[in-house]
Amino acid sequence: MSVLLQDERLDDLNRNGLKIIQNPKKFCFGMDAVLLSAFAKAKRGDRVIDLGTGNGIIPILMSAKTEAEHFTGLEIQSYSASMAARSVRLNHLDGRISIKEGDIKEASQIFGTASFDVVTSNPPYMKSSGGLKNPDSTKAIARHEIMCTLEDVIREASALLKEHGHFYMVHRPARLAEIIDVMRQYRLEPKNMKLVHPFIDHDANMVLIHGQKGGGVQLTVEKPLIVYESQGKYTDEIYDIYGY
Amino acid sequence: MSVLLQDERLDDLNRNGLKIIQNPKKFCFGMDAVLLSAFAKAKRGDRVIDLGTGNGIIPILMSAKTEAEHFTGLEIQSYSASMAARSVRLNHLDGRISIKEGDIKEASQIFGTASFDVVTSNPPYMKSSGGLKNPDSTKAIARHEIMCTLEDVIREASALLKEHGHFYMVHRPARLAEIIDVMRQYRLEPKNMKLVHPFIDHDANMVLIHGQKGGGVQLTVEKPLIVYESQGKYTDEIYDIYGY
Repeated sequence: MSVLLQDERLDDLNRNGLKIIQNPKKFCFGMDAVLLSAFAKAKRGDRVIDLGTGNGIIPILMSAKTEAEHFTGLEIQSYSASMAARSVRLNHLDGRISIKEGDIKEASQIFGTASFDVVTSNPPYMKSSGGLKNPDSTKAIARHEIMCTLEDVIREASALLKEHGHFYMVHRPARLAEIIDVMRQYRLEPKNMKLVHPFIDHDANMVLIHGQKGGGVQLTVEKPLIVYESQGKYTDEIYDIYGY
Repeated sequence: MSVLLQDERLDDLNRNGLKIIQNPKKFCFGMDAVLLSAFAKAKRGDRVIDLGTGNGIIPILMSAKTEAEHFTGLEIQSYSASMAARSVRLNHLDGRISIKEGDIKEASQIFGTASFDVVTSNPPYMKSSGGLKNPDSTKAIARHEIMCTLEDVIREASALLKEHGHFYMVHRPARLAEIIDVMRQYRLEPKNMKLVHPFIDHDANMVLIHGQKGGGVQLTVEKPLIVYESQGKYTDEIYDIYGY
């Protein structure tokens, strides 16, 4: 019996034989999530939570790349959470990954404060506006701050983390000043940052940021990550991250 | 009669025949100042002030690169201010650049609030520590926060600027989170940022940042500036900036 519902497809993740369920009409992961999975670190024994996990791409990739003990994926949209849960079962990762349907705004109430070593998030990037055509569509909720704001994500991340725990997020450089401000407001001191540029001579279009709860004031801006060497040809670093 | 004092030398700036007095034992400008002069913008008619001008390198370079009406260089150290003033005269720039000996902490008292269109600064980067061997040496005062802190520079920059005026600073990425925080605290919204990496595969070692007083929340992270193409060989962009 197929695990796939209408419009769904099964994609190969090119890593440890992992596969993931996607639905082009509803939710497909982006390069952002893959880059965050490569940027984020988790140690043996760590408990990790991904806020707004979509189809579970981040915990699934990180389960292969790290020795963390357990991953939780929190997702407010039932259908996305169902794709994530089915992908977890399909990969026989039930013992290591749990998918929970629920609201980021209540994450520290649901899971308790100071209960995780690592928080990851690829949250909605865009401010919500009244002009959205389909504010209740799966894609709109994943991309716009309809169900949660940047501050909700950061506040809950900080509350969920143990002291000295680590927060990893991917977002848009346009909002970097706010991101740094709000992170510091909630005691997540920015420690590492990596800018992602589509080409070496283009403005950055993503930022990967790592903060430590109660960490010391010292930020490292790592070498830039360039996506394309030339039109249509990824750089070696991107091929490495994708595992080709 | 030579304008040079003991240990001083006259360097060519490779631009419009400009020269500058330097003293390797006391103060020589760094690449930081040159990159800031290229990053900063000033329009025809603008009044510009450089906070902590050293030997006047930033106003002297910007006088050639922009159509700004007038530049002021503020410098607390008498000897550095004297080098700057002599370089201004030597280049016949007395009509366009004034050098003032004085304290950054009192800049808005000295010059009045809302009196400039553009503020530039290449301030001391390092936190002052009790362990400094020569805390009163010219070099120590230029490099360490002995006479002024990051917050002093940003507070005075904001006070000196007219509403919607522009602030340009070069600093260390290690302090970027604080920089952004303090800029926003004083209403200098970060608008553009450029990371400088010694090599394409190294962490950034400088950050160029532009904030606008009362500006909207939207930051552009520009393409990275790479200094060396290979050991000992500058990239074309650096050669361009230096005017070779």
